[in-house]
Amino acid sequence: MRFTEQLWQEISPLYDAILQHGFVKKLTAGSLAIETFQYYIQQDALYLVDFSRALSQLAARSAQPDEMLLFCEFAQNAIRVERSLHETYFTRYNIEPQTEKMPACFAYTNYLLATTSLQSPAVGVAAVLPCFWIYREVGTYIYQRAVSENPYRDWINTYAGPDFDRVVTQMLDLTDRLAETAGPAERAGMREAVRLSSRLEWSFWNDAYTQTRWPV
Amino acid sequence: MRFTEQLWQEISPLYDAILQHGFVKKLTAGSLAIETFQYYIQQDALYLVDFSRALSQLAARSAQPDEMLLFCEFAQNAIRVERSLHETYFTRYNIEPQTEKMPACFAYTNYLLATTSLQSPAVGVAAVLPCFWIYREVGTYIYQRAVSENPYRDWINTYAGPDFDRVVTQMLDLTDRLAETAGPAERAGMREAVRLSSRLEWSFWNDAYTQTRWPV
Amino acid sequence: MRFTEQLWQEISPLYDAILQHGFVKKLTAGSLAIETFQYYIQQDALYLVDFSRALSQLAARSAQPDEMLLFCEFAQNAIRVERSLHETYFTRYNIEPQTEKMPACFAYTNYLLATTSLQSPAVGVAAVLPCFWIYREVGTYIYQRAVSENPYRDWINTYAGPDFDRVVTQMLDLTDRLAETAGPAERAGMREAVRLSSRLEWSFWNDAYTQTRWPV
Amino acid sequence: MRFTEQLWQEISPLYDAILQHGFVKKLTAGSLAIETFQYYIQQDALYLVDFSRALSQLAARSAQPDEMLLFCEFAQNAIRVERSLHETYFTRYNIEPQTEKMPACFAYTNYLLATTSLQSPAVGVAAVLPCFWIYREVGTYIYQRAVSENPYRDWINTYAGPDFDRVVTQMLDLTDRLAETAGPAERAGMREAVRLSSRLEWSFWNDAYTQTRWPV
Repeated sequence: MRFTEQLWQEISPLYDAILQHGFVKKLTAGSLAIETFQYYIQQDALYLVDFSRALSQLAARSAQPDEMLLFCEFAQNAIRVERSLHETYFTRYNIEPQTEKMPACFAYTNYLLATTSLQSPAVGVAAVLPCFWIYREVGTYIYQRAVSENPYRDWINTYAGPDFDRVVTQMLDLTDRLAETAGPAERAGMREAVRLSSRLEWSFWNDAYTQTRWPV
Repeated sequence: MRFTEQLWQEISPLYDAILQHGFVKKLTAGSLAIETFQYYIQQDALYLVDFSRALSQLAARSAQPDEMLLFCEFAQNAIRVERSLHETYFTRYNIEPQTEKMPACFAYTNYLLATTSLQSPAVGVAAVLPCFWIYREVGTYIYQRAVSENPYRDWINTYAGPDFDRVVTQMLDLTDRLAETAGPAERAGMREAVRLSSRLEWSFWNDAYTQTRWPV
Repeated sequence: MRFTEQLWQEISPLYDAILQHGFVKKLTAGSLAIETFQYYIQQDALYLVDFSRALSQLAARSAQPDEMLLFCEFAQNAIRVERSLHETYFTRYNIEPQTEKMPACFAYTNYLLATTSLQSPAVGVAAVLPCFWIYREVGTYIYQRAVSENPYRDWINTYAGPDFDRVVTQMLDLTDRLAETAGPAERAGMREAVRLSSRLEWSFWNDAYTQTRWPV
Repeated sequence: MRFTEQLWQEISPLYDAILQHGFVKKLTAGSLAIETFQYYIQQDALYLVDFSRALSQLAARSAQPDEMLLFCEFAQNAIRVERSLHETYFTRYNIEPQTEKMPACFAYTNYLLATTSLQSPAVGVAAVLPCFWIYREVGTYIYQRAVSENPYRDWINTYAGPDFDRVVTQMLDLTDRLAETAGPAERAGMREAVRLSSRLEWSFWNDAYTQTRWPV
């Protein structure tokens, strides 16, 4: 069994919890409250900037020039997507940019930055993997079920499309390659990183759905 | 007005929220549930290891040998305190070591690691400051009010004692010195870091009090 | 006077030493020994991979998304140039890839990696600046004087061309912007970084010219 | 064969070159020119500050609290030794503190900082190992042969003494433990790091002996 197949088995309870979450159900049905989507997009814009930083750190630390090039491109894309959020959704839905990270976004971005700063590239790659992988799976899942008049159709199409699929396949292949040469402790660290980031994916959607703010 | 005086004004609402929190009130009254204290100590042991890492990063990045030496000592002490937790409270209260960081501990430690990895030493120093400073203030506050038969007397004495006071004074002096030579953007970053860590101090106590677990 | 104008004054003795160096003189005259050029290209290929890492670290640490995007592109370009060296010069001159960094390349790459890991982004930007700036100046200088039948014409055209000029202008503008908000200690660090990297540029050419090897 | 035994075999040509070097020969005979010793001590003071930074980075990145504690102590000691150089040799021999790192010191410190920033802790530990190990071996070698009226007796005694021996034993044991769990690529990285730092040890002494200055 490929390492990433084993990973998927391990995070499938978290993936199921995401699919069962009200955010995803209402996004599929096209009935997600606009306030929920606004919160989500505001936090996503903040997330993507730090996600790009994490990817640049992986570019700096990767052993092979091929991997460096891949992460340079992914880091660039994260900023480009952040910009296109502003040009599309922020304008379309009249969203004010938010400057404060809410709890899930705060926890997730700091986890990615700390992990890509201090852990091995293999563990860092595992930490950024769920943001690619789960989005493709959730995007495809919603795409197949979404009502045609869905107001969030553009968002859904992005993550269910072939360009994003290609990126995810590259990430999965790289993860498998890195797992092959990793020692047992490092491989355990990779599995833990995938589990933690998958949980934080759930938290990210849950924060938007529940409009979570800092209590103090 | 000293920079740290200005900082204290800014975080005083957060400090007040901590003093008003059930955790601190019951700790003072000696009526804190043992389960709450256990959760707190388990998470504190996990916190201290990463707090030590953050301090070692400040040792590595500080400009002056004096500062490097200070942070080497603080990093060492954090590990020593983590060990003494095991030798005292874990044994006394029959606490099992916890291996999973709960939400507040997870957010706080990753924030400290990310900040000391990626931000300037001045901002990193600001990020670790509240853990010293707020503990001294809360420790002293509780010490002056605690019932004499308080089962948590040892814990209280630690943070209200002269050794810890000396450490906090060193941290405050250093923060003021670094603020003097920082540019305006860096000084703004320092203030933001103190605010974020102070909020996370509240969250850390709140998680113990509410026995917060990860929902997924 | 712009900060970068002041920088140029400070490094002009180093720039003059580069222009007077046998490597540059013979490159201009088209009489550079093929062994010298081979050594240079071998080391340059090793240099560019780590230069890309340094640029990715600046992408990760830069405050503004615009700056992050710029350094993602520069980091990508460094790897692309490294590849094109292999496709062109390595093939054309039958050069074997070298795996060991010689003294100047070793010192320079480790300096860039250490500085972009541990110093502020402004100092890191200053450290990578001379590799852009001095190459444009030397490239243009040689271009204006080079004999037309120069066997190294392609190399010269690259660094004297408009694409590279645009990149250098972006780097200089960014350096000036960062210097404006830097405190005095940070600005001194920027000047020192430009001086050290300019010296290492000289050493890099000198090592090729003298075919320097490690004595042990 | 222990991993560190294999390492010693690999670096024995470099170790032999150090023993045969004029610096070590004259240090043993007590005939080392005072200018040579001054240069060496000036550069050593600069080296130790960055060596301490590298050790603090290993403290921050080590997986186990025991290892973190060890590197906190070593990082502290490096600063203490740096200070005692000033209090003893700088005063005794009327040495002016030098602020500019000469080529070997520059290359070595940047290599240690870059490696402990970007490589795994195992490779970082391997990079700092020769500074401990080779000094013990050279110190002991000289101690056994030094003339009794040697003006550099204090220096020799330090590195041939039991305190330093204990530190080196801890470093060697740790290196062996880390090599056991490292994958093949990481183990190859460890061997390369030991080779590079051993070479830089030679360069450090050689620079002092030849009074090397930057040519530009």
